[in-house]
Amino acid sequence: MSDLSENLQKAISGSAFTRNLGLQVESWDAHTEALRILMPFSPDIERMKGSQQVHGGAIAALIDTAATFALVAREKTAVPTIDLRIDYLRPAISTALIAEGRVRRAGKTIGVVDVEVSTPAGALIATGRGVFGLGAK
Amino acid sequence: MSDLSENLQKAISGSAFTRNLGLQVESWDAHTEALRILMPFSPDIERMKGSQQVHGGAIAALIDTAATFALVAREKTAVPTIDLRIDYLRPAISTALIAEGRVRRAGKTIGVVDVEVSTPAGALIATGRGVFGLGAK
Amino acid sequence: MSDLSENLQKAISGSAFTRNLGLQVESWDAHTEALRILMPFSPDIERMKGSQQVHGGAIAALIDTAATFALVAREKTAVPTIDLRIDYLRPAISTALIAEGRVRRAGKTIGVVDVEVSTPAGALIATGRGVFGLGAK
Amino acid sequence: MSDLSENLQKAISGSAFTRNLGLQVESWDAHTEALRILMPFSPDIERMKGSQQVHGGAIAALIDTAATFALVAREKTAVPTIDLRIDYLRPAISTALIAEGRVRRAGKTIGVVDVEVSTPAGALIATGRGVFGLGAK
Repeated sequence: MSDLSENLQKAISGSAFTRNLGLQVESWDAHTEALRILMPFSPDIERMKGSQQVHGGAIAALIDTAATFALVAREKTAVPTIDLRIDYLRPAISTALIAEGRVRRAGKTIGVVDVEVSTPAGALIATGRGVFGLGAK
Repeated sequence: MSDLSENLQKAISGSAFTRNLGLQVESWDAHTEALRILMPFSPDIERMKGSQQVHGGAIAALIDTAATFALVAREKTAVPTIDLRIDYLRPAISTALIAEGRVRRAGKTIGVVDVEVSTPAGALIATGRGVFGLGAK
Repeated sequence: MSDLSENLQKAISGSAFTRNLGLQVESWDAHTEALRILMPFSPDIERMKGSQQVHGGAIAALIDTAATFALVAREKTAVPTIDLRIDYLRPAISTALIAEGRVRRAGKTIGVVDVEVSTPAGALIATGRGVFGLGAK
Repeated sequence: MSDLSENLQKAISGSAFTRNLGLQVESWDAHTEALRILMPFSPDIERMKGSQQVHGGAIAALIDTAATFALVAREKTAVPTIDLRIDYLRPAISTALIAEGRVRRAGKTIGVVDVEVSTPAGALIATGRGVFGLGAK
């Protein structure tokens, strides 16, 4: 794991909220500006006890984290979320999820990131898009 | 607490994910079709350890829950989230948050709910809007 | 009509795109920071010839205009649209539409505006929300 | 031009609103479920007279059309727009725009389409995402 990935992991684990979701940095590709984060399946993120379906709120938190830290990896600065949108395409049943965040725009004051959430086998579960503040160092 | 509110609370506490956020049903107003849900502040939902700022992902989960269960209260059926949007207006520092979900449309196949998230003192922290599936009993 | 309303109308009519939609400033309330803009019905904004249903793209343009100029009225500066979201709640058949834009946040770099689109009789047709850049004079 | 493309063009030109924008079907790829629609530059879609910048409302209408008709091409049925979201990434100055709509999900009651709007030279101008009703024949 690169130093940058280690620093991202430290930041993600530094919040009890994302640490409790078990979020793990998989990779950061500086060329494509794409960050991959994995959320393991556990009963703690079930929609309902015994349903084995991942809670939409956990998927929202995964998308927020992948989008935020894709920009952090690029900009090396904190980036407050201005807005976040999530489309739920298919239920995720008893599966880890991988979110890939990709920076689409990074201007002076605003960054935009797209996120795709898939199963390890490649089934698309959800998409997300967020706008973030830049230059607020 | 009414029977309906008790049932909503049971459903919310039946998911480890929302139970761990401490979400509490405050009230359901059948006339205005508005549901109020409280999320207490705790270190478990901090953006970063010691920051005392509520994590955006926790606010997203609160909004999803208030929107979902406002429709559940009205429709008495499960309502899968189709999409969800959140605008973060101000940071929430060391404060409980109250989300009020209000049904704006409930047709044959689609429901739309608006949510406002405020501090107990009334400062607006975030707004949300979600589209949900209906009739999928 | 106040001087400010006249100036807003001039700016709206200064674009062929919004002039062709016939958009008219109805009122600006500085206290509530709410701007009302009317779009008359005409065959030029029909979804399909003869359908008498207002085209969703025209409603999107109406919402963009009401949101943009609510911020312009408050900030006295141009405000580029960062993102825009529209929820279509009911079809609008052979009716004028009134959009009311209301500023929800106006910070140093970002403004957020909510819009409701209704018939003159008060039926809610669509809602919108936009994020705009500020301070880019 | 294929029969399907011709039929799409007829539907688009059948609305005065989209005909006045000059929208032209470029191609429909049944394999990737991607529809390309071109909007020529003209003074009628300027943000302000003489600015040569394409109006955001015209881009919104282009995105709505590309998304709608990508689903129509696939489903062979009318698809009412439930919601629509647009992110404006860069200004478009004195240029035609090409919107590519791509179906991301088409279930029993809901379709989701992503749209990218670029210049003919390939610069990304805006992205869009829409949710549409299906099965409402």
